[in-house]
Amino acid sequence: MLVNVLGIPGGLALVYIGGVTFAGFITIVMLYALFEYYSLQQHKDVYPQKWLGWLLTLLIGYIYYIQPEVKFPIVLIYLSFFILVALIIELFRNKSHPNQNLGTTFLGILYIPLLLGSMIALREQDTMQGTQLTFALILSIWVCDSAAYIIGKKWGVKKIFKRVSPNKTVAGTAAGLICAIILWLVLNNIGFLGKTYLWYQVVTFGVITGGFGQLGDFLESMFKRAVGVKDSGTILMGHGGVLDRFDSLIIASPLVYIFANTI
Amino acid sequence: MLVNVLGIPGGLALVYIGGVTFAGFITIVMLYALFEYYSLQQHKDVYPQKWLGWLLTLLIGYIYYIQPEVKFPIVLIYLSFFILVALIIELFRNKSHPNQNLGTTFLGILYIPLLLGSMIALREQDTMQGTQLTFALILSIWVCDSAAYIIGKKWGVKKIFKRVSPNKTVAGTAAGLICAIILWLVLNNIGFLGKTYLWYQVVTFGVITGGFGQLGDFLESMFKRAVGVKDSGTILMGHGGVLDRFDSLIIASPLVYIFANTI
Repeated sequence: MLVNVLGIPGGLALVYIGGVTFAGFITIVMLYALFEYYSLQQHKDVYPQKWLGWLLTLLIGYIYYIQPEVKFPIVLIYLSFFILVALIIELFRNKSHPNQNLGTTFLGILYIPLLLGSMIALREQDTMQGTQLTFALILSIWVCDSAAYIIGKKWGVKKIFKRVSPNKTVAGTAAGLICAIILWLVLNNIGFLGKTYLWYQVVTFGVITGGFGQLGDFLESMFKRAVGVKDSGTILMGHGGVLDRFDSLIIASPLVYIFANTI
Repeated sequence: MLVNVLGIPGGLALVYIGGVTFAGFITIVMLYALFEYYSLQQHKDVYPQKWLGWLLTLLIGYIYYIQPEVKFPIVLIYLSFFILVALIIELFRNKSHPNQNLGTTFLGILYIPLLLGSMIALREQDTMQGTQLTFALILSIWVCDSAAYIIGKKWGVKKIFKRVSPNKTVAGTAAGLICAIILWLVLNNIGFLGKTYLWYQVVTFGVITGGFGQLGDFLESMFKRAVGVKDSGTILMGHGGVLDRFDSLIIASPLVYIFANTI
């Protein structure tokens, strides 16, 4: 409860402030969520290179914030450099699962900062284009989660994806998706988005946050289930870990950013 | 023997021809080496997403060849898209090690096409700048390997890195490094490199191909050892797999490319 009381207005305030404050907040979230993801792997005797992951998280957060224009070979030169460093560190580390250690090191970076970092770029784009997509993204994820939880608890019978999430029901998931779409339609109609989108564009945003957002939830459950753990961490007490709280945004945010940049 | 008789002049001819022929050859090598790397993982019940790896290999080969200038968000948009596709495929795949499957899918892409693909960019740069670094790279790796093998067999006693490569000796490794450096110095002196480098720059090239090249060998041994396999494949008969033949180039090539672009 405390998490929601402090978390929701706090999160909205950070989105409102934007700029380096918001970018810094998201970067801290990414650092901590990556720490949780790497810690999960240790249940299977896999030890990712935490420090390299953190370093690259800082770099990715910074890149999403400043959005440089780059000549192509430069990207590959930097990328190759970090890969070579990781490979050589692993060679001298003397741990028993090098493929897994390196694999999850990179998977963690691609799964968390690279995807979630798009929130920083999205917020910057909101400032430049006068839109409010970051607000709408977060609000719709909350509405979706709440609707799914309430309706699922009340009317949910048939399970939707028992293998990865034994508690999620068809009714709850559908309610989450529908409510997310409705929220986007309402926000668009009252002019909250800062720009008026066509109805099918708004529905697409709703499908991204309400549909793919819930897919993000299933994905994180899959990762946790594979290592035999229920919560990604305990920092938020009854609310699990940071990764548990941001799993929908990890998938929904880059898609909102991509879609907003292609329409 | 047949592999060397056909392989060495064949390889040199391909470097000489350059252009799309060389780029195509390297891309085929990358596709096959990635296939071998992914197949190795199956010894540990890990199943990478082969088709996605191949698709990204083709894309990386193409990008290294055309060397586009890109605006930053575009890179991340494309990258995010492929990551999302991989994550969602894994969710519906119902395999038992999703962290490992996804991790090695990406590790394979970063380890093989992303690093080895630099040979394509290096060869293109040779054409544009009138240098012969690709030739020198390949020659010095061969000289290094041969010297290490011959001297190691004859005078090698003390093992250098028993944990990952039980047969490699200090004498052999040192001989490989020294011969690689000497080759670069000679090539520079006779004007073969197409541009005259300072002595310490040439020595650096020698350390990259003779030193880091051998590190690439150790690295691949580590990956194979971790899954309990000796050769990456059998396509080249007594010479092991394609990955075995290109393990030094995987590490040396991007470093030569990076170094040539920073001096």
